Amino acid sequence: MALDHIQQQVQQVAAAARVASRELAAATSSKKNEAVRAMAAALVQRQQQILSANAADVESARRAGLGAALVDRLTLTESRLKEMVASAEAVASLPDPVGTVLREWQRPNGLTIRKVRVPLGVVGIIYESRPNVTSDCATLCLKSGNAVVLRGGAESFQSNRAIAEALQQALQATGLPAAAVSVVPVPDRAGVDAMLQLDHEIDVIIPRGGEALIRKIVETSRIPVIKHAKGVCHVYVDQPADLAMAERIALNAKCQRPATCNAMETLLVHAGAAPAFLPQIAAKLQAAGVEVRGCERTRQMVPGAAEATEDDWSAEYLDLILSVKVVGSLEEALAHIARYGSNHSDAIVTTDQAHAARFLAEVDSACVYVNASTRFTDGFQFGLGAEIGISTDKLHARGPMGLEELTTYKYVVLGSGQIRE
Amino acid sequence: MALDHIQQQVQQVAAAARVASRELAAATSSKKNEAVRAMAAALVQRQQQILSANAADVESARRAGLGAALVDRLTLTESRLKEMVASAEAVASLPDPVGTVLREWQRPNGLTIRKVRVPLGVVGIIYESRPNVTSDCATLCLKSGNAVVLRGGAESFQSNRAIAEALQQALQATGLPAAAVSVVPVPDRAGVDAMLQLDHEIDVIIPRGGEALIRKIVETSRIPVIKHAKGVCHVYVDQPADLAMAERIALNAKCQRPATCNAMETLLVHAGAAPAFLPQIAAKLQAAGVEVRGCERTRQMVPGAAEATEDDWSAEYLDLILSVKVVGSLEEALAHIARYGSNHSDAIVTTDQAHAARFLAEVDSACVYVNASTRFTDGFQFGLGAEIGISTDKLHARGPMGLEELTTYKYVVLGSGQIRE
Repeated sequence: MALDHIQQQVQQVAAAARVASRELAAATSSKKNEAVRAMAAALVQRQQQILSANAADVESARRAGLGAALVDRLTLTESRLKEMVASAEAVASLPDPVGTVLREWQRPNGLTIRKVRVPLGVVGIIYESRPNVTSDCATLCLKSGNAVVLRGGAESFQSNRAIAEALQQALQATGLPAAAVSVVPVPDRAGVDAMLQLDHEIDVIIPRGGEALIRKIVETSRIPVIKHAKGVCHVYVDQPADLAMAERIALNAKCQRPATCNAMETLLVHAGAAPAFLPQIAAKLQAAGVEVRGCERTRQMVPGAAEATEDDWSAEYLDLILSVKVVGSLEEALAHIARYGSNHSDAIVTTDQAHAARFLAEVDSACVYVNASTRFTDGFQFGLGAEIGISTDKLHARGPMGLEELTTYKYVVLGSGQIRE
Repeated sequence: MALDHIQQQVQQVAAAARVASRELAAATSSKKNEAVRAMAAALVQRQQQILSANAADVESARRAGLGAALVDRLTLTESRLKEMVASAEAVASLPDPVGTVLREWQRPNGLTIRKVRVPLGVVGIIYESRPNVTSDCATLCLKSGNAVVLRGGAESFQSNRAIAEALQQALQATGLPAAAVSVVPVPDRAGVDAMLQLDHEIDVIIPRGGEALIRKIVETSRIPVIKHAKGVCHVYVDQPADLAMAERIALNAKCQRPATCNAMETLLVHAGAAPAFLPQIAAKLQAAGVEVRGCERTRQMVPGAAEATEDDWSAEYLDLILSVKVVGSLEEALAHIARYGSNHSDAIVTTDQAHAARFLAEVDSACVYVNASTRFTDGFQFGLGAEIGISTDKLHARGPMGLEELTTYKYVVLGSGQIRE
């Protein structure tokens, strides 16, 4: 396809989303809930079309020689579709954040100022293979009054189109504009580039994917981006600490689901705790299949530990690999996290209140933990009811993003003829 | 200066600001207030150095043939310096937003989750000639626990350096790091470009200046930007409306200070109200020196009105010029604002409650007014006590930005050994 034709196509989709967003902003909660429930029903009703579109994507991916992990992420089954339906139904039951008065006050001149929660407008989501993201993001955006422009990976293009068609059918049946949920109609990279230029049509880009994808988007985009970047999460075992608790937390943070961004990638151990703690925890981690890479002191205490290189300290393994460092003090742990961390989730295991307070105050991460696993950084675990992702940015939204984080506010000012002196 | 040397210099300044920001994040309110009051005192004490540095800037600007308006904005006088001192003292008296617990809740597993307000970290400000911005932004950032990297216009380089030196002296005297307030040490454009690449050192860029500057920054920056872009503000005079009130509001919104971003640039008048309203208001505006540019119907009713071109509808005049359009309905007014507005501040003058409600809901601007002048969009007028600018973005901060908008939050999670099942 010619480049200017691609740009035109993407622009048309985004402009239609902008028009739809005005209608959504004015839609009542009950109308939006009706639409989200209809979306859930449409996924059930169109199951055959969705599964066969997905089978075609999977077949192409296999022919193209894509890796087994990627093919697995791409594959939809009846049970995965059921989870998508359940998610949509859960979103319909959540409270609607739009219209909440965040604050209201009066000025001496009689003006009433009201700060009111409103939708962002048009949300652009750029993501990789998992087709469930299509319906999860679409229902969250709709519930929060936003139109969404979805751009999934090229490998899941047919699946995403089939899912979006089902969702659009549901929107039309409830009397809301189908353009509220749109898929970028161009599978190749030029579709993303075109999307990132449309700062008049799209209010925010939320990228979900690997580091390279996100870096490219930040470099290219004219639209504000809320990054969902990497999680290099630390657990620091302090002196004094409950070492049995530290062991449970470290094992959970590393092994419970190592491919997630809130899994531990580096274990820091106070030198005073190391002799009693490190050999045992390392043995248990290794028994669970974890490859341990350590600093020199770690390697003296842990048989079979490889040498950690400078790159290991900032690596997001997303796998059964762990870097381990013995530190001389809380200060050294704080300095290590400041230097190599990714401001995502970090935990201290300690029985010293002052150490805990200092860790909580000085570690500049979205989520800081005392005596708990970093694996709790999650919209559901936090009790937000849903999650569109985990922001590693500081602006607008930090950490797990639920429905409220998909809104902004406006100031409504009510007067009786006031002018400025 | 060689490009890599410039990049290195700017990087060093920003890295020092990052280190300073950690110390500021932990500083108590009383320590920060002491520092801000010392900053005010240092501006008084160093008055002579600041005024002579400014005189040198003004002299260079004159020699370079800069316009009179720009030279005026650049010029510091004793009375302008007094205003800077008063602003700093006012900032010291404001409540400190840092440390506020925004929400706290417990999960069924016993975890306590606390959402706590924390500083953004390092704020980068890019601005044009006015040297008072240097101290205004520095004190607001310090009070909210942020380090600031300031990059003023090349024409005010010596003034800004002299002001920053005074502020840094005050910081050191109170025992806070001087690097908390830094000026980019390179006066030319390469200094800005280098700054915009430092996404590890700087958390947010706030640009204050003309449209071209802001567009360039958004295109170049890897750091999130909170735009303070243009204000194409509308007043819509509805049918029915109190026309005497409409006249007062329109005159105030256009004439009280036309060079500000919250001044009216386009007047929309319902066709039903136009015959009784337009000739009179136009005569009064013209008597106040306003050039009226109108649509065809306006020109039939307003002697001396020039023809408004397509460009006029999206123009931010910042001057005694006004575009006027007669519209057939509230819907037409809403469509005009959606198409040509800049999402800043827009007002309806009406006596119809339903029309007011629809305008407030459907106009997608930071501030929407009923029966009041758009000129109230301002941190002081809103009662925020201070203002670092007026955001025209939707993410993070919208409309007037005070101290709270210079903060973000973190989640503090307190456990007793919880792990994820």
